[in-house]
Amino acid sequence: MIDHRRLRVALLGAGAVGSQVADLMRRHADELGDRAGATLELAGIAVRDLDAPRDADLPRELLTTDAETLIVGSDIVIELMGGIEPARTHILTALNSGADVVTANKALLATHGPEIFDAADQVGASVYYEAAAAGAIPIIRPLRDSLAGDRVQRIMGIVNGTTNYILDRMDAEGAEMADVLADAQRLGYAEADPTADVEGYDAAQKAAILASLAFHTTVPLQAVHREGITGVTKAMMDAARHAGYVVKLLAVCERLTGRTGLSPHGEAISVRVYPALIPREHPLAGVHGVNNAVFVQAEAAGNLMFYGAGAGGVQTASAVLGDVVSAARRHIAGGAGVGESTRANLPVLDIGDVVTRYQITLEVDDRPGVLARVAGILSDGRVSIATLEQTVPDPAADTGSARLVIGTHRAVERDLSETVTRLAADDVVERVVSVLRVEGD
Amino acid sequence: MIDHRRLRVALLGAGAVGSQVADLMRRHADELGDRAGATLELAGIAVRDLDAPRDADLPRELLTTDAETLIVGSDIVIELMGGIEPARTHILTALNSGADVVTANKALLATHGPEIFDAADQVGASVYYEAAAAGAIPIIRPLRDSLAGDRVQRIMGIVNGTTNYILDRMDAEGAEMADVLADAQRLGYAEADPTADVEGYDAAQKAAILASLAFHTTVPLQAVHREGITGVTKAMMDAARHAGYVVKLLAVCERLTGRTGLSPHGEAISVRVYPALIPREHPLAGVHGVNNAVFVQAEAAGNLMFYGAGAGGVQTASAVLGDVVSAARRHIAGGAGVGESTRANLPVLDIGDVVTRYQITLEVDDRPGVLARVAGILSDGRVSIATLEQTVPDPAADTGSARLVIGTHRAVERDLSETVTRLAADDVVERVVSVLRVEGD
Repeated sequence: MIDHRRLRVALLGAGAVGSQVADLMRRHADELGDRAGATLELAGIAVRDLDAPRDADLPRELLTTDAETLIVGSDIVIELMGGIEPARTHILTALNSGADVVTANKALLATHGPEIFDAADQVGASVYYEAAAAGAIPIIRPLRDSLAGDRVQRIMGIVNGTTNYILDRMDAEGAEMADVLADAQRLGYAEADPTADVEGYDAAQKAAILASLAFHTTVPLQAVHREGITGVTKAMMDAARHAGYVVKLLAVCERLTGRTGLSPHGEAISVRVYPALIPREHPLAGVHGVNNAVFVQAEAAGNLMFYGAGAGGVQTASAVLGDVVSAARRHIAGGAGVGESTRANLPVLDIGDVVTRYQITLEVDDRPGVLARVAGILSDGRVSIATLEQTVPDPAADTGSARLVIGTHRAVERDLSETVTRLAADDVVERVVSVLRVEGD
Repeated sequence: MIDHRRLRVALLGAGAVGSQVADLMRRHADELGDRAGATLELAGIAVRDLDAPRDADLPRELLTTDAETLIVGSDIVIELMGGIEPARTHILTALNSGADVVTANKALLATHGPEIFDAADQVGASVYYEAAAAGAIPIIRPLRDSLAGDRVQRIMGIVNGTTNYILDRMDAEGAEMADVLADAQRLGYAEADPTADVEGYDAAQKAAILASLAFHTTVPLQAVHREGITGVTKAMMDAARHAGYVVKLLAVCERLTGRTGLSPHGEAISVRVYPALIPREHPLAGVHGVNNAVFVQAEAAGNLMFYGAGAGGVQTASAVLGDVVSAARRHIAGGAGVGESTRANLPVLDIGDVVTRYQITLEVDDRPGVLARVAGILSDGRVSIATLEQTVPDPAADTGSARLVIGTHRAVERDLSETVTRLAADDVVERVVSVLRVEGD
């Protein structure tokens, strides 16, 4: 049943995603109308510079530098400018003028999400952001709707394509990071300034969004523990492979019970981004190249995984257009949108309170009593040894050094960290080569 | 913002899924209320026999044999009885009395879907069926909402856990089907009468539901080409492994252009279930045991995969409860539900019109000229050879027989089928060992 209504759609931004959205809206206008139940009219495209070069051939007459006028008078506003301002102001203007908003702006949602969701609630409008968490992979609706009757225990996500590409090639080719990064930049998989990706800022924003949704709790970006991949070396990748693991940059969102710092209901959450070891047989280990995947463990549903392209102009445009159709359907159907559900308000634990397994690699003096000494320090620090491998790099050379790879049982991060500090300061330890968390086993 | 409204929920059926739904609704009542925005009151559970043994401990006072009275006066009706009648009548009664319906009944939706969706449209109610297509895996919302602005080109699904368990174990252990099936029955992974699973009926129902949704077209169950796995032998699995493939029972839903039998828009779809060879490096090849996965190729989004438990009482209950929360939110928000979108009305092609690659295994006379003869028959039948391997089982024994494994280029099923008939009838061919389609490469 087609409603012969027209809905005016404003597009803010005509970059890689925006120009694809505009292109698909025009090429698939009939189908989108069928899906939405109304004709979707692209009313205009707000840009900063009318003459900037574009990825797609956009009709000049749709371009405008006057975003405000375009927004007021639209039914649906698609914000694809990125950054905090003026995106935030434009979205608030749109909501206050009664429009639904579709955005792929993870930086904005991770920092100003509550303000935006509150503004939407006030007027009964909706904010759609499927493209903000894992590009083209549908993860927002599954978390918000499909799993609404379940309890998410844990999310482990590969949510940044650039770092997955780098780590995957280091693993597959035994390459050094600098070489792969240079290649990634040449191929357009990494930015000229790769900081947002390789330091985990992008993944942390997505982790905040996913955790907020999964645990019905506002998770501020500052509460997300973040470590990037710049410390990952070829040697660490090789050692991981030898031990049956692969190194991935993971966004881990976890519900914890029975720990310190818990809510009155005895629960808390932890949200963290870091390079971690995962077993080679884990489904996430098979996520190659720039692909993303989100692995969800829920109380009733068990293990689920969502896999696909985490970025890319046309892929992300698919998620944006799905949101546009949802927004249009809501306009046609009437009624209020689904508000963000943040009633659980679980406390977010400090990284020090997190419990996981670790793999510690040490270079130690190769002499009697050293192993007992190391084991003693671990035991004093309440870190229990699960596996241990001692090797001598070159027995013939007799360098006087040995390498210890220690896999721990589950330990509290604070204990582990203090223990590593004590190990580093001890005479028998020449060097702490690496400390990596182990996830997914 | 909690609405202090109460919504009355009727549950029809208290089998493996129903009893888990009842249990979770009672144990997680507060959280479900938060998610839904209203208190969900389990008003009653309709069963055939009040005294039948149950998987969970259900309050006796909720049980009733009077389904009709329970339904009329409920806001949300969860149908988990299975089968066509009385499930169909109950669902129509529910919709006509203004209730939203949640069902996991794939047999009913695959046969009476249009009648049920029409009834819902008439009154502006909604039918939710996330659990009907792939158990706990959220696939309905991604197809209906997230990909609503995209064009699905192809779905390849492992949507039956029993057959995946059987084929996976045959592959991993080199076991015969009969032995694995017996084991699966003992472990509860296969029914005493396994026909619905092993003959592909269950997968065909799910394929009809997925294709209807993905292509916005009513796909009747009879239009789904269906072959089961009973013809799959250990020898076929071994040969597949040798060639770098694995045999999986696939539900393939495909959009075709540029073929005969197309719509006025030059498009048609094909929906088929059969055991097929897929390359070992394909993500679907890594789906083991009773797990399911749905691989979706969309024009803009690219390749997506959804993975998880395809069945199981508590897993399926998760999907059902997600639907209950969605139905409740719709009740609270007001407005009409999202109707089924079947405006595309693409024709469903006969299996004979499908184009794919094949692997043909023949036993032939081991003498000069045979290869030329076989190649001639294929060429006459418009079937082009891509790869060919000839082996002699035991050169020393000189049995006079050789084995030919022929990989074809893409060919029309009708041509292929006629060619195989001619091969089988030819003097030089002793036996057609197997003909398998190749998907996913």
